[in-house]
Amino acid sequence: MRIFVINPNTSSRMTEHIRRELDRIRRPDTEITVMNPEHGPDSIECAYDEVLAGRGTLELVAKANAEGYDAILIACYSDPALDAAREVSSVLVIGIEEAALHVASMLGHKFSVITSLPRRMPTRDLHARMRGVESCFASALPLDMPVLEMDTQPEKVKARAVALSRKAIEEDGAEVIILGCAGMTGYAKDIERESGAVILDPVAVAFKLAEALLDLGLAHSKIRRFASPNPKRSCGRADNDVL
Amino acid sequence: MRIFVINPNTSSRMTEHIRRELDRIRRPDTEITVMNPEHGPDSIECAYDEVLAGRGTLELVAKANAEGYDAILIACYSDPALDAAREVSSVLVIGIEEAALHVASMLGHKFSVITSLPRRMPTRDLHARMRGVESCFASALPLDMPVLEMDTQPEKVKARAVALSRKAIEEDGAEVIILGCAGMTGYAKDIERESGAVILDPVAVAFKLAEALLDLGLAHSKIRRFASPNPKRSCGRADNDVL
Amino acid sequence: MRIFVINPNTSSRMTEHIRRELDRIRRPDTEITVMNPEHGPDSIECAYDEVLAGRGTLELVAKANAEGYDAILIACYSDPALDAAREVSSVLVIGIEEAALHVASMLGHKFSVITSLPRRMPTRDLHARMRGVESCFASALPLDMPVLEMDTQPEKVKARAVALSRKAIEEDGAEVIILGCAGMTGYAKDIERESGAVILDPVAVAFKLAEALLDLGLAHSKIRRFASPNPKRSCGRADNDVL
Amino acid sequence: MRIFVINPNTSSRMTEHIRRELDRIRRPDTEITVMNPEHGPDSIECAYDEVLAGRGTLELVAKANAEGYDAILIACYSDPALDAAREVSSVLVIGIEEAALHVASMLGHKFSVITSLPRRMPTRDLHARMRGVESCFASALPLDMPVLEMDTQPEKVKARAVALSRKAIEEDGAEVIILGCAGMTGYAKDIERESGAVILDPVAVAFKLAEALLDLGLAHSKIRRFASPNPKRSCGRADNDVL
Amino acid sequence: MRIFVINPNTSSRMTEHIRRELDRIRRPDTEITVMNPEHGPDSIECAYDEVLAGRGTLELVAKANAEGYDAILIACYSDPALDAAREVSSVLVIGIEEAALHVASMLGHKFSVITSLPRRMPTRDLHARMRGVESCFASALPLDMPVLEMDTQPEKVKARAVALSRKAIEEDGAEVIILGCAGMTGYAKDIERESGAVILDPVAVAFKLAEALLDLGLAHSKIRRFASPNPKRSCGRADNDVL
Amino acid sequence: MRIFVINPNTSSRMTEHIRRELDRIRRPDTEITVMNPEHGPDSIECAYDEVLAGRGTLELVAKANAEGYDAILIACYSDPALDAAREVSSVLVIGIEEAALHVASMLGHKFSVITSLPRRMPTRDLHARMRGVESCFASALPLDMPVLEMDTQPEKVKARAVALSRKAIEEDGAEVIILGCAGMTGYAKDIERESGAVILDPVAVAFKLAEALLDLGLAHSKIRRFASPNPKRSCGRADNDVL
Repeated sequence: MRIFVINPNTSSRMTEHIRRELDRIRRPDTEITVMNPEHGPDSIECAYDEVLAGRGTLELVAKANAEGYDAILIACYSDPALDAAREVSSVLVIGIEEAALHVASMLGHKFSVITSLPRRMPTRDLHARMRGVESCFASALPLDMPVLEMDTQPEKVKARAVALSRKAIEEDGAEVIILGCAGMTGYAKDIERESGAVILDPVAVAFKLAEALLDLGLAHSKIRRFASPNPKRSCGRADNDVL
Repeated sequence: MRIFVINPNTSSRMTEHIRRELDRIRRPDTEITVMNPEHGPDSIECAYDEVLAGRGTLELVAKANAEGYDAILIACYSDPALDAAREVSSVLVIGIEEAALHVASMLGHKFSVITSLPRRMPTRDLHARMRGVESCFASALPLDMPVLEMDTQPEKVKARAVALSRKAIEEDGAEVIILGCAGMTGYAKDIERESGAVILDPVAVAFKLAEALLDLGLAHSKIRRFASPNPKRSCGRADNDVL
Repeated sequence: MRIFVINPNTSSRMTEHIRRELDRIRRPDTEITVMNPEHGPDSIECAYDEVLAGRGTLELVAKANAEGYDAILIACYSDPALDAAREVSSVLVIGIEEAALHVASMLGHKFSVITSLPRRMPTRDLHARMRGVESCFASALPLDMPVLEMDTQPEKVKARAVALSRKAIEEDGAEVIILGCAGMTGYAKDIERESGAVILDPVAVAFKLAEALLDLGLAHSKIRRFASPNPKRSCGRADNDVL
Repeated sequence: MRIFVINPNTSSRMTEHIRRELDRIRRPDTEITVMNPEHGPDSIECAYDEVLAGRGTLELVAKANAEGYDAILIACYSDPALDAAREVSSVLVIGIEEAALHVASMLGHKFSVITSLPRRMPTRDLHARMRGVESCFASALPLDMPVLEMDTQPEKVKARAVALSRKAIEEDGAEVIILGCAGMTGYAKDIERESGAVILDPVAVAFKLAEALLDLGLAHSKIRRFASPNPKRSCGRADNDVL
Repeated sequence: MRIFVINPNTSSRMTEHIRRELDRIRRPDTEITVMNPEHGPDSIECAYDEVLAGRGTLELVAKANAEGYDAILIACYSDPALDAAREVSSVLVIGIEEAALHVASMLGHKFSVITSLPRRMPTRDLHARMRGVESCFASALPLDMPVLEMDTQPEKVKARAVALSRKAIEEDGAEVIILGCAGMTGYAKDIERESGAVILDPVAVAFKLAEALLDLGLAHSKIRRFASPNPKRSCGRADNDVL
Repeated sequence: MRIFVINPNTSSRMTEHIRRELDRIRRPDTEITVMNPEHGPDSIECAYDEVLAGRGTLELVAKANAEGYDAILIACYSDPALDAAREVSSVLVIGIEEAALHVASMLGHKFSVITSLPRRMPTRDLHARMRGVESCFASALPLDMPVLEMDTQPEKVKARAVALSRKAIEEDGAEVIILGCAGMTGYAKDIERESGAVILDPVAVAFKLAEALLDLGLAHSKIRRFASPNPKRSCGRADNDVL
C-alpha cells in the first residue's frame, strides 16, 4: 500500500523528521511519500496558521488522489483542513489529532494533551469536544516552547514532557498522554519510560491506523458530511480550485 | 462607528444583496463597507469552500484593521476563518452563525436551522455543538437549493422556508428558526408572517450585535484562544502572510 | 424606542444606580424607565429572595406592556421570573444573566462569573447549565460581600474583582469575566483595565442587546415555552392575577 | 412522623384529591397535613402560575417548620419554589418532580413524562436537564387537557395516558412513564395495567421517599445552595418576609 | 414485606455487619435476609472482582425470586451484575450505588464519593456518568484503605472520611458525601456530625428506598433493557444457567 | 506477533466463523488463536449472558498472558468483562465494541449500530455513552433475530441489514453502520455494496487495530482504572481466582 503523508507546514526539517520516524515504523510493504506545501507558514501554532496552511494541504490531497495513493495522513496536531480534505479525497484521509484522541480514549480512563504554548490550551479543549470525546479529556499541558524548537531540542522537550505527564497523572486524573505536536514524533518511548504513563505519538498512531483501515478496504463515508464538493459549482477564477 | 462586513465568497451579487439589506437596518451614524475577496469560491457550500475562502477573508480582516474600522462581520453562515480572524484582529470580529446561535438560544426553547443542501446538515449539528449550544439545537432543515439560488429566487426560498419552519415547529420542537445562509438576508419578515415562528436573519442579528457591543467598547478576549499570532514566527515566503 | 428596566429588588438606591449607568449608554433616541417593585426583598441573594421578588416583577412587566413599552429588561443577575415575564409580555423581555452568559460565550473560550457570596456559587453553575452554555463556564468567583455593599463600596468591589479575575484567568481558564450582580453596573471598565480580561457588565450588555433586537423587530417566540397564560383559567381571588 | 404536604395551587378539590390518595398509602404511623395556599392560581399550568404560587407555598413551608413537622412535600409537578423552600426550611423538603425524575431514571432505561398542554413540553425537557437526568429523558407527552380537568375526568385521562404511554414505548424508547401532574395522583395502577409500562405517580413516589429519608434522619444539605437566607438582610416592608 | 439483601463478596464478617445495621433501620414489619455467595472474592475492589462476584450474586437473585421475596438489594458499591439481576428477577432489584447517586443528586448541588483506593477513582467517575448524573458529581475521594479494613477499623475510617469530606466541600463544591463502600454502613451519623455535610450510607438509603417502592407496588420496567432472558436460548452445559 | 482472540460464548460454530474470517485478513506474520470458554452461555444476548460469560473469558485472558501472546481480542459486541480483562492482563486487550465505536466516530458524522433484538437497543445507547461517544451515536437498529441465527443465515441477515442501513441514513442521520454482533463478521462488504454506507465489521476493525497498536508497542495504561488486581487480597476459595 502507498500512503501519502502531508506535513501541512513548510518546514522541510520537520518533514524530514516525520519521514525518518515513519520509515522506522512502516510495514516493509508500505510505501510512503512525505511532503509539505511549497507555500504557507513554517509552523502551525494558531488558527491563523491553520487557515494559511489549508490551501497547500488541499493541493497535496488532490495530488495524492491523482497519483493513486491509497490513503492520506495530515500530520499536524490540529488536523488543519481535515473535513475539506475528506470531501475532496476519494481515498481515506486520517488526521493525527482525531486518531490520537480516539485511541487515547480507549487506552485509559482519561488523557491529557501536551501542547506547545499556553495559547493553544483552549484549542485542545475545543477539539476534544468537537471530536466528541470531551468526557475523556483530562487537561492540556503547555510545554511553553514554539513548535519548531520541539523538532530541534528533543532532550529539553522530553524532560519537560515527563514532568508535565507526571503532573497530569497526579492532579488531572490522566492515564494516557498525547504528544500534541508532530514535532515530537519519535519521542514517545523515552517519555513513557520516565513517566509511567502510556504516551501516544499521534503521527505514529494515525499512520498505523491508516495501514489497518486500508487492510480492510475502509475509507471515510461520503454520504453527507464528507460528500465531494458539488461539481456544478463554478469558481471565480481558475486558480481558486485546487482540484 | 464604522463596521467592515466581509462576504467571504466572491459573488459580487451576493455582496450587493448584503449591502442593500444592511443599508436598511444600520443606524444612521453607522458606516458600512461590504466587500468580498477577489479570489476564492463564489459560494460556500462545503468545508472545501470554507478553506479556500479563508485566506481572502483574512486579507480583508487585515485591511479592515489597517483602515481603522471598529468591528468586522464575517457574513457567511459557517463562520469561515472566525477564530483566525479574531487572532489577527485587534478590533471586534463577529461571525453571523455564532451570533445567530446564541441569540436563537435566548428567544425560544429550541431552534432549527435552514440550510442549503442535505450535505450541510451535519455541519449545522457540529457547529451548534462547537459553539456550546447543542442542547438548544432542534434540527437542520435542508432547502435543497444551492447557495447562489437563494440570492436569485427569493419567492421560492421563502415558500420552502415557511414549509420547513412549520414542520420544525410541529415535529422537532423548534420555536425559533435561523435562516442559515447569508443569501437569505432580508427574507425573515415574510417567512415570520407565514410561519408563526421567530425567524432570525443571521446577517442582521450579527450586525446589530456588533453595533451593540461597540457601544460598550467590547471586543473578543485576546488572552489565549484569540491571542495575536506570535510575531517572532517567520514564514516560508513573504506572500504567506496576510498581515 | 422605549425600554422599561425593572430592578426586581426594592432598593431605590440600586434602582438609581442602574438608571444613572443606563443613562450614560443608552442611545439618544432610546427612552428608559427604571423602576423597582414597591414590595419585596431589598436585595436578591438567594432563591427565597427570587421568589418573593417575583410578583412585584411581574406587576411591572404588566405595567410596561400596558403602557406600550417596546422592551423590558429584568436587571437582577439571577433573572428572577424571566420565563413568567416572557409568558405575560407581548413585547421582548431580556434577562441580564441570560444575555451576559451568551455574549460571554462568544467573546472568549470560557468565562467566569463574579458573585456575591459563596452560597451563590451553585446558582451560577446551575444557571449556566440551564441556559445551555455549561461547556463555556469556567468558574464562579465569590466576592464574599452582600449585594447592597456592591452598590455602596465600588472601590472595594473593584479591587476584589481584579484579584478574582486574575485568578480565574490563571487557574480556571477564563478569558471573559461576568460581573454577576446588577449592583456592579458601571464598574467594568476599571476592572478590565487592571485585570486584562474582557469584563462584561450584564446590565449594559442586556440593555444594548435589547436595543439591537428592537431595531430588528425581534421578540421572544410565543409558540410553546413562552406562550401567554391560558386566559380561560380562573384564579382563586382577584388579587392573584397581576395582569 | 408528621409530613406536611403543600398543594401549591388554590384548588381545594385537588387538595382533597391528594389527601385522599395519600391517606391510602401513608404508613399507619405517618401523620399528614395537606394544605393549599389561600391566595394564588387555582391551577399551575405555566411559569407565570409558578411565580404567583411561590409566596403562598413558602408561607406554608414556614408554617410547617414552625409547627414542627418532620418533612414537607411540594405536590405540584413543576416543583415551584423548591430551592427557596429548602433554603427557608430546616427540615427535609421534597419536590414531586425531582423525586419522580430520579426514581424513573432507576427503574428503566428512559422515561417519558405525561403533561397537560403542549405548551408545557419544553418545561418537561428543561427540568429534566436542570435536575441532571437529561440522558434518561425520552419525551414529553401532552394530554391536551387543562390541569383541573385531570382531577375531574379520571377515565378520560387514563384512556389518553394509556395511548400516550404505548406511543412513547414504541417510538421514543421509554420504559417508564411519569404522570406529570398532581391531578393524576391515584391513576397509576389503572394505566400500568393497560400500558405495560411502569407508571410513576409523583405524589406517591415523593411521599414514600420522604418517609424513607426521615427513617434515616436525612434532610437536604444546608452548605451552600440551600443555605438559610442571610438573617442580617432587612426587607423593605414587614410583609415581604414570610418567615 | 420481605427483602433479600445480597452482600456480593464472600466476607461473612461484612455480611454480618450489613445485617446488624439493617436490623437497626428496617421497619418492624420488614423481614430481611442477608446473605453472601459461597464462592467468589472476599472483597470487591476492582472490575475483576466484580466479574467473579457476578455468578454468585445472580444465584442469590434467583434464590430470592424462588423463595418469594418482595425485593432484592445488591449491597456492594459498584452494583455488580445489577442489569443482569434485573433481567432475571421478576421482583424489584435495587443497587446501592445507583440509589445513592440519585438521592445524593436531590439533597445538594453536587456530591463526592469516598472510595477505597485511588485505583477506584475512575470507576466512581464512570459510574456517575453511566447512571446519568455526571453533572452532579464533584469528585472521588480515596481513603487509601482496602475494603476489608473499612469493616474492621471504623474509627480510622471515620477520621479519614471527615477530613476528605471537608476537603471535598471546600475544594470540589460537594454538598453531599456518599460513603462509597458497604463496609462503611452505619458510620454516616458520626461523620455527618463532624463534617457538616449530609453523609449518605448507600446500604441504608437503598434499603429504605426499596421499602418505599414496595409500598407502592413498584418494580423496574421489564420492557426492553431489563427484559427477562430469552427462554428459548439453550446453554452449553446445565451448570451455566443459574435460573 | 501472536494475537489471542476470545469468543466469549460457547458456540464453537461461531468460534470457527470468527477464525475463518480473521484468517482472511490477518497479516502473514500474525499468528492467531481463536478460542471460546468451555462453560458459559452459547450466545450473548443480554446482561445476564454477559455476566455468565465473564469468568470463562477471564480464564482465557489469563491463559493468553501465561502463554506469552502479544494482544488479546474480546470478540463479542458488548465487550463482556473488558475492564476486568485489562486489569488482569499485562498485554494489550481490545474489545470489539469499543474499537468499532471509536473508528466509526472518525469515519462519518454519526453511526448507527445493528443489533440482534429490540431488547438490546438500550444497551447500544448505554455503551455509546459509557465509551464517551454518545454525540456520534445516531440509533440502534434491531435485526429481530437471535444471535445464533446471524451465524447460520447470512443472506437473511445481509438483506435486513441493507434495509436497516438505508433507513438509518435517511431518518437518523447515520453515515457509518456498525454490524453489532460478532456473528456478522465477514458480511460487511456485501452490505456496503448495497447500502452505500461505510459498514464496520467490529471483529475485523478491532483485530487490525490490535496489529497496529502492537506495531507501536502500545498497551492500555495500568495507572488506575486498569491497574492489576491487588495481589495481597486473599480470596475465599482457591477456585475463585482465575489467575
